[in-house]
Amino acid sequence: MTRSTGRVVPAHPDVRSHLASHRYTGDEIYALVSRLYPMCRSITGAGLRETLRVIQEIIPIEIHEVATGTTVFDWKIPKEWAIRDAYIANKSGARVVDFQQSNLHVVNYSCPVDTTLSLNELEPRLHSLPDAPDWIPYRTSYYNEDWGFCLTQNQRDGMADGDYRVVIESELFDGSLSYGELCIAGTSTDEIILFAHCCHPSLCNDNLSGVAMLTLLAKAISTVRLRHTIRFVFAPATIGSITWLSRNQKTLQNIRAGLVASVLGDAGKFRYKLSGQDDALIDRASTHVLEHRYPDFELLEFSPWGYDERQFCSPGIDLPVGRLTRSPNGEYPEYHTSADDLDLVAPQYLAESFEVYLEVIGCLEANRTFVNTSPQGEPQLGRRGLYGKMGGFQHIEDIKLAMLWMLNQSNGQRSLLDIAQRSKLPWQVLDDAARMLEENQLLREVANGKDGLGQ
Amino acid sequence: MTRSTGRVVPAHPDVRSHLASHRYTGDEIYALVSRLYPMCRSITGAGLRETLRVIQEIIPIEIHEVATGTTVFDWKIPKEWAIRDAYIANKSGARVVDFQQSNLHVVNYSCPVDTTLSLNELEPRLHSLPDAPDWIPYRTSYYNEDWGFCLTQNQRDGMADGDYRVVIESELFDGSLSYGELCIAGTSTDEIILFAHCCHPSLCNDNLSGVAMLTLLAKAISTVRLRHTIRFVFAPATIGSITWLSRNQKTLQNIRAGLVASVLGDAGKFRYKLSGQDDALIDRASTHVLEHRYPDFELLEFSPWGYDERQFCSPGIDLPVGRLTRSPNGEYPEYHTSADDLDLVAPQYLAESFEVYLEVIGCLEANRTFVNTSPQGEPQLGRRGLYGKMGGFQHIEDIKLAMLWMLNQSNGQRSLLDIAQRSKLPWQVLDDAARMLEENQLLREVANGKDGLGQ
Amino acid sequence: MTRSTGRVVPAHPDVRSHLASHRYTGDEIYALVSRLYPMCRSITGAGLRETLRVIQEIIPIEIHEVATGTTVFDWKIPKEWAIRDAYIANKSGARVVDFQQSNLHVVNYSCPVDTTLSLNELEPRLHSLPDAPDWIPYRTSYYNEDWGFCLTQNQRDGMADGDYRVVIESELFDGSLSYGELCIAGTSTDEIILFAHCCHPSLCNDNLSGVAMLTLLAKAISTVRLRHTIRFVFAPATIGSITWLSRNQKTLQNIRAGLVASVLGDAGKFRYKLSGQDDALIDRASTHVLEHRYPDFELLEFSPWGYDERQFCSPGIDLPVGRLTRSPNGEYPEYHTSADDLDLVAPQYLAESFEVYLEVIGCLEANRTFVNTSPQGEPQLGRRGLYGKMGGFQHIEDIKLAMLWMLNQSNGQRSLLDIAQRSKLPWQVLDDAARMLEENQLLREVANGKDGLGQ
Repeated sequence: MTRSTGRVVPAHPDVRSHLASHRYTGDEIYALVSRLYPMCRSITGAGLRETLRVIQEIIPIEIHEVATGTTVFDWKIPKEWAIRDAYIANKSGARVVDFQQSNLHVVNYSCPVDTTLSLNELEPRLHSLPDAPDWIPYRTSYYNEDWGFCLTQNQRDGMADGDYRVVIESELFDGSLSYGELCIAGTSTDEIILFAHCCHPSLCNDNLSGVAMLTLLAKAISTVRLRHTIRFVFAPATIGSITWLSRNQKTLQNIRAGLVASVLGDAGKFRYKLSGQDDALIDRASTHVLEHRYPDFELLEFSPWGYDERQFCSPGIDLPVGRLTRSPNGEYPEYHTSADDLDLVAPQYLAESFEVYLEVIGCLEANRTFVNTSPQGEPQLGRRGLYGKMGGFQHIEDIKLAMLWMLNQSNGQRSLLDIAQRSKLPWQVLDDAARMLEENQLLREVANGKDGLGQ
Repeated sequence: MTRSTGRVVPAHPDVRSHLASHRYTGDEIYALVSRLYPMCRSITGAGLRETLRVIQEIIPIEIHEVATGTTVFDWKIPKEWAIRDAYIANKSGARVVDFQQSNLHVVNYSCPVDTTLSLNELEPRLHSLPDAPDWIPYRTSYYNEDWGFCLTQNQRDGMADGDYRVVIESELFDGSLSYGELCIAGTSTDEIILFAHCCHPSLCNDNLSGVAMLTLLAKAISTVRLRHTIRFVFAPATIGSITWLSRNQKTLQNIRAGLVASVLGDAGKFRYKLSGQDDALIDRASTHVLEHRYPDFELLEFSPWGYDERQFCSPGIDLPVGRLTRSPNGEYPEYHTSADDLDLVAPQYLAESFEVYLEVIGCLEANRTFVNTSPQGEPQLGRRGLYGKMGGFQHIEDIKLAMLWMLNQSNGQRSLLDIAQRSKLPWQVLDDAARMLEENQLLREVANGKDGLGQ
Repeated sequence: MTRSTGRVVPAHPDVRSHLASHRYTGDEIYALVSRLYPMCRSITGAGLRETLRVIQEIIPIEIHEVATGTTVFDWKIPKEWAIRDAYIANKSGARVVDFQQSNLHVVNYSCPVDTTLSLNELEPRLHSLPDAPDWIPYRTSYYNEDWGFCLTQNQRDGMADGDYRVVIESELFDGSLSYGELCIAGTSTDEIILFAHCCHPSLCNDNLSGVAMLTLLAKAISTVRLRHTIRFVFAPATIGSITWLSRNQKTLQNIRAGLVASVLGDAGKFRYKLSGQDDALIDRASTHVLEHRYPDFELLEFSPWGYDERQFCSPGIDLPVGRLTRSPNGEYPEYHTSADDLDLVAPQYLAESFEVYLEVIGCLEANRTFVNTSPQGEPQLGRRGLYGKMGGFQHIEDIKLAMLWMLNQSNGQRSLLDIAQRSKLPWQVLDDAARMLEENQLLREVANGKDGLGQ
């Protein structure tokens, strides 16, 4: 387990302070997306490893290597894939499909080939999108040794009958699968896990957006005093989360909440997909934050189809991990095509995603449980300077209403987030109210409160 | 308890196989309705007994006779009713109302009478429908010794002042109440009960439709290998179900699900009325089947008014018995009139009803409970040939999604029907998925699973 | 505890009998509002005491006095306030703001002052409503020794620059806080509490409407034989309910249901605000009554902002007390202004409120729990003369349907109110059905049934 032990005193006393003192433009996130874009990633290999090293320049992740053949639950780590070049050349030697132009042109994990085939023989190896004739699709063959090429429909239509030279200079060999991990210690071992898959080649929204956003989020978080321990994992989809889970079974019990971060750079509205538990702390926190900041967000029921939440929410793991995306997998036309490029994502959207994630963490951090120390009737707030001096007005300010809610509901059984959900007030106002009442000894925090985390 | 013991090996391994290999036209059901239509049924007597004998030609029901005066719960079996003739004749001797024209003309269970009355004296004994002047209403006086005539409003308006000869050649005598029963044994004693009231005279939708549909359903079911034992009961309304319940108290505990089958031949949309338990297995199965096949169906809350579900759902019986009809009692204008005739019902609607019943039974039969034997993360389906070889596509096929759902949700606590409801996939696809996963040892069936029925 | 012990035999056997035999015009309630209107009430003092004495002329309330300085939970009884005169006079001596014209002109609880100030110096002490230039606002300063004047915006705009004589002839002294209480004993000690705040000066809807309605309700109730003990409390807002609660802690456990009665005289639709328990008996009874009588009523979620339900529903008290109003606090423009006068309220609306309160009490009184003594199947109602003699009709009368519901649902666990909610029939019809079935020994009342109250 990686723990940053030598941390200097954080610049911010809590997440709200960080949120209050920064304006996020998303430029830094977008720059990281742009830097990582050209690399040919896969579920193993040099592109993946190089991606993790770039992240390591920004945050001190530990890079783990798990050897080919290692058993991880029902799976085995596959051979490592290397790719140097790949092309289809016509009889005049011109490359009509060229890996150097786009690393999507080769079916990911293709085995080596060097042969000449007629167009007719080649056809079953070609993948294109008739309905989007300018886009190259993204196809993979991780666990079935095979090869193929992806190309635009226009390219395909331009290929004349005749023979073609077909070359894939790749290698499948005993190597390792790489993933990166950073654990930022809080005062409690109760843990929030944030996961981004980082195995896709030149695709921006899916999922350089998640990778880059989480990287900069970790950087920001590291300047904050935290109650929860926050763990960041960058790993290949499916096999990566399965690998991480199988190697960390003993400490999974520390995880109180988690999010799978993906598809966070496009203009689509936010979507929160419920964890398999349906009403977990993370489900309530994410929903609450989005309801107040992006009321047009969409709440998606849990389903075992999607990203790595499938593994976190499998019945033998059953962790409270949701998924917070913008346009989710399969729900935007550019999904898994060359059109998921640097134009599809924008700094503004990345910044919004960053702030939502930071707010969810802030909400979890603020989510304490209290008892009202003066529970019979309302305590006299005016005497303590917590209430207006003059009475009779039609409306009550939010902060005063929040104090009344905290006092009324704090019986040691309900958390601040429960009260936020019932009162429909944002968590920040209730947090302010709680602090003022705590200072006046009208609320007392309960250790090991309803949603976990003691003091 | 009747058990067909000497059954030959069934032609179909399960209900799905029967469903897959037949096209149901409803002609056979309609023919049975037509054959039974002319008989003058009542809650006892020759018409009822003859109806049961016709059913017995098709399926081997046992016909039970319960003697007049027998106590059945709070009731007593009434005297048996026989009716030979009945008419109102004018002074020239012409029959203006004639039982030979329609057996609805006499109030059902009328006692004998032979007298002459002025029209004025006769008036209180006449029943007609001013708003439907061509239709004869259906009226009964089972438990209050009385007599009367039903006629069209037009007939009534045509009756001149003066004296009328009034004759009812009926008899009320110590006899018996008849009902029919067939029990088709499954591998388990867990039981599904299907009930149709068969006491109404010449009325087609209510309830020759239910009687005939259940008869042919029993015939079809008898060619299928079953897990549940399925019991068919044909009995008079109210007194019949009360009689059956009072005589079978010791084995009621075997009943896991049941349906009252009535009003199944008209063009109306399907209505499912919840059992008194509201969320019983039969409620979930019927709702699920109708949601997928007839999404415009109507879900009705339980109420103690209606057909024989009133008795099955009485507080001292409290069985999980719902009611699956098309236009339910009182909700179609022809209800309990001579217009509920052979034109109101049609083979097509009877066939649809037949298929829905068969599907509900199929769903109950397929409703097993499993544990995922590889619950940590998803098992590698590709290795077992259960998943596509190539990855990267936008959409997933239903059968693969169904496998993911079955794996994700099968913790030994949730039944296939639970998973069908949560996933919104039809039960058949989940059944296919379950079988494939079971063959690959990825699911293991749980004995005595959530919804009853072990292996 | 006050108990009217010497009550004569009540004129009515139950609340339904009272409801059936009276037509309520609201004139008597409106007359009481008019009589109390001119008095200058506050949370202590002569106006409050005089108000209680007027109520005492109508119903035998006991008037309690609690001395200044007494600790009541987190609060202390404040000094008593007396006010004789108050005005602002211009340099020619003419009163431009005059307490004799409206007791709203002085900030309630103002301390004495006698000085001369320039308009500029006076400004911070003046309160007006720019958006409602004809109305005087109502302002208070109970717990912060201060003074001020309320006036119309028009008055304020008419004040020329220059010096003004400012006089408030008030006194703050060690005295007492007054409240009134009447307890009408039922056959059970199970209690319903009805509370009206009576501290506001010349404001009609808030809350002379509640004060007068409850007074006449108590008068009416005292002619009825009751199962519940019914307690009426007339006290100042907040400090009054806190005082009452702190002095009656030992008997609070008797309270089964309660309502805060306020804002009951305007034309607004009814609003029921749920108790903090959300699904308490009073929540279900009030909702049920309003659903049938005023289907356009609005159901409000619980919130710790509002009237004295804040104190009854505080976490250390947690009583099942809801609030039944017409336009609630802050929701009508005239709230806490001089426009909340005798024109805003009308006898008709007061009468409707009176009837709704009486019906809620009637519903609670009728809310018994039964067991069906013949629970297997339906009992034969016809034999007992409880059912129609002739059968076959499309529709069933409400009273017969109610009998079937009572029989079907009465398993000793469900109350009449539960059955009313499920059946959607009004409680009165179910009460009629229950009585008929009880007479026929088909239902037997359960002592200490589901919702409290034994026989």
